[in-house]
Amino acid sequence: MERIKLAEELSFSRIIHGLWRLNEWNYSSQETLSLINHALDAGITTFDHADIYGSYTCEELFGQALALNPSLREKMELVTKCGIVLESPNRPQHRSHHYNTSKEHIIKSAEQSLKNLQTDYIDVLLIHRPDPLMDPEQVAEAFAALKKDGKVRYFGVSNFKEHQYQLLKSYLDVPLVTNQLELSAYELENFDDGTLNLCMKERIAPMAWSPLAGGKIFTSDEEKAVRLRTALQKVGKEIGAGSIDQVMYTWLLHHPAKIMPIVGSGKTNRMDSAVQSLKLSMNVDQWFEILQSSMGHDIP
Amino acid sequence: MERIKLAEELSFSRIIHGLWRLNEWNYSSQETLSLINHALDAGITTFDHADIYGSYTCEELFGQALALNPSLREKMELVTKCGIVLESPNRPQHRSHHYNTSKEHIIKSAEQSLKNLQTDYIDVLLIHRPDPLMDPEQVAEAFAALKKDGKVRYFGVSNFKEHQYQLLKSYLDVPLVTNQLELSAYELENFDDGTLNLCMKERIAPMAWSPLAGGKIFTSDEEKAVRLRTALQKVGKEIGAGSIDQVMYTWLLHHPAKIMPIVGSGKTNRMDSAVQSLKLSMNVDQWFEILQSSMGHDIP
Amino acid sequence: MERIKLAEELSFSRIIHGLWRLNEWNYSSQETLSLINHALDAGITTFDHADIYGSYTCEELFGQALALNPSLREKMELVTKCGIVLESPNRPQHRSHHYNTSKEHIIKSAEQSLKNLQTDYIDVLLIHRPDPLMDPEQVAEAFAALKKDGKVRYFGVSNFKEHQYQLLKSYLDVPLVTNQLELSAYELENFDDGTLNLCMKERIAPMAWSPLAGGKIFTSDEEKAVRLRTALQKVGKEIGAGSIDQVMYTWLLHHPAKIMPIVGSGKTNRMDSAVQSLKLSMNVDQWFEILQSSMGHDIP
Repeated sequence: MERIKLAEELSFSRIIHGLWRLNEWNYSSQETLSLINHALDAGITTFDHADIYGSYTCEELFGQALALNPSLREKMELVTKCGIVLESPNRPQHRSHHYNTSKEHIIKSAEQSLKNLQTDYIDVLLIHRPDPLMDPEQVAEAFAALKKDGKVRYFGVSNFKEHQYQLLKSYLDVPLVTNQLELSAYELENFDDGTLNLCMKERIAPMAWSPLAGGKIFTSDEEKAVRLRTALQKVGKEIGAGSIDQVMYTWLLHHPAKIMPIVGSGKTNRMDSAVQSLKLSMNVDQWFEILQSSMGHDIP
Repeated sequence: MERIKLAEELSFSRIIHGLWRLNEWNYSSQETLSLINHALDAGITTFDHADIYGSYTCEELFGQALALNPSLREKMELVTKCGIVLESPNRPQHRSHHYNTSKEHIIKSAEQSLKNLQTDYIDVLLIHRPDPLMDPEQVAEAFAALKKDGKVRYFGVSNFKEHQYQLLKSYLDVPLVTNQLELSAYELENFDDGTLNLCMKERIAPMAWSPLAGGKIFTSDEEKAVRLRTALQKVGKEIGAGSIDQVMYTWLLHHPAKIMPIVGSGKTNRMDSAVQSLKLSMNVDQWFEILQSSMGHDIP
Repeated sequence: MERIKLAEELSFSRIIHGLWRLNEWNYSSQETLSLINHALDAGITTFDHADIYGSYTCEELFGQALALNPSLREKMELVTKCGIVLESPNRPQHRSHHYNTSKEHIIKSAEQSLKNLQTDYIDVLLIHRPDPLMDPEQVAEAFAALKKDGKVRYFGVSNFKEHQYQLLKSYLDVPLVTNQLELSAYELENFDDGTLNLCMKERIAPMAWSPLAGGKIFTSDEEKAVRLRTALQKVGKEIGAGSIDQVMYTWLLHHPAKIMPIVGSGKTNRMDSAVQSLKLSMNVDQWFEILQSSMGHDIP
């Protein structure tokens, strides 16, 4: 599979597997291991986590599977996130939903992720959301300490707009290697407001969360979803796609920003479908037809 | 006429003539030549085109007039644009309205413009609209090739917001010498959202399209247009303007950004009226009175 | 009191006293002097003015008090502003409300402020509002002249968004040392739109005007104000605050941007209350509880 270079010694598979619902799939560790092996065999080597996924359970479930075959660790890139605090039965000490990007919280969170994932290092640690109370000096100190200790190789952000990105960057000694964004033909905000352009200007490849708009394209009766579905079906026939999710992936992959879609399914056929989309292509008429079906009006 | 320096060896006349409706004027080549001569005599040496104007016909009509007296070429600056694809009987191969800023499209479009305009070089080639699918590397390669071949002297953009401008700039080996924007006392978006400030920060003078708001100031019954017209008439009397279009031009010319209004009329008296406005002046009370009539409320 | 360093030889007290309503307090010069002395004794050494406050009267009232004990001048920092023109019986020559950031206006305004304040120098002169007609070259020339003549030590802006700030900065030979912004738990615009982040990125500490939202938190029946007041009361009890204004100040002081609240009261007990808030602290749960009460919804 095509790989995207993020730093001198780091590359991601173009398609990334997302584990945010791992706890809902009710897989045994052996079944999760099979899913991981299926991904790796398909060329998907990058796995996206966050401390909070599954109310703080998904990293651990993944780690238990990985422990069944620790030699897989060096064949994959592990991404995880920190900075959101959730109320959870698994974190009784948490009293409210808030953000925390203090040095202490970031380091503790990363160390807990290492333990949960049963690994010695995280490939990329992301700040999960822009924190209105972020002290960039604290983030810089946390990143420096984690890098020095070999606990985290690289750092990035998620859902950061340009002003948040540039503020943090101005305090860091380490580069930011990615910005994980909500990006799909359905949700165009980051295309419109300059956030995707920021990534291209900074020469960083974005990870795309919710590349299928959370399934809205399949079932929603909402006018926008219906318009988009109709266009996806039409273009899908023209380009030989097996399903409209492939058209959604192809639309993202066709963009020059080197967008890396995160596929969050526990079903191997959905994973394979995403991988198949790498072989499809789309012309500029078709790309704009899908864009305009989502916008609901012609371009100027 | 006052001239604005855009680069070491490039200056524009402060008032620019726009040809986007040339096909509607039903002029013979000789009549178009007369219009060009009238403009040049008035000091208007800069002519603004786009490949798509008149559904891909205006450049050619201008070129046919210029061919009647090719020696005029060196007395003028020709600006044209590329990057929009329109469905048109003149381009039967086009299947949809979209943007195309690929290397291949930009070069082909510029070469077609050279042919249509019957000239060996374009002074400034603009990307007509920000393209959500723009690959800045392709634009950079196209610009470099066109410059190397002597086909285009300078490059710029049109309707670019800051994030689009900075993205493209970060990939280019050549400078961007202008950003053509919709700017008028009626349409204030680029004043408000930082786009005009971008031009000043980048030390580039903007060209203003629709400086009369498409004629709304003359005839529209819309509340905003009526408010603005009333203020224009009042200030016009105070400053000795012959007509409210002169007040609109004077308002733009008074701004320190060195705005260059594009006059898109085929009537010599309208052209002359715009040129006359260069002799008018306005004080800061009057400038704000017009601004606030357009805004519909007081400044903070 | 904690002091914030703004430049090599300039620091402000963390709490600043604002004089914009000095004319409404109906104090004799002796009473105003007592107020100044009370502030200085409490560690509030920075006083915030503008030419236009009290319809051009407040600076003069302050200056008359200062003249009673000129030795106080070297114990304080005086901030004032220019660039707004108001119609006023005290300025009969003014014909309309507008902005004026011409070189001539800035210099004349600063010189008048010196006279009114009965001082030889202004510590920091701010451009009061972003001026859509601002010629940054003129501002740069005015600042350079005022600095050279020793009339103004440092310069800043007020209410500037990033594009306005970066435009002006790009023309200046002197640094901008602060951006005075409306900042409070009630009015979150500058938190949301990147303006506060700009200050942190530029390493400048912002001054906060209307830190109590103009008193809305005390009395307004508006839904947002009621929600916020309820949260302030709850957190206030938890942190041992004497009143909800202290909770508002503590919320601002807890932010890492080194926000300096301007207290605009003529009552010594309100001033003291603000100073007391420097001893309070707030945890991250409480900070977000107040934020979310103002937003009216949970964070993502």
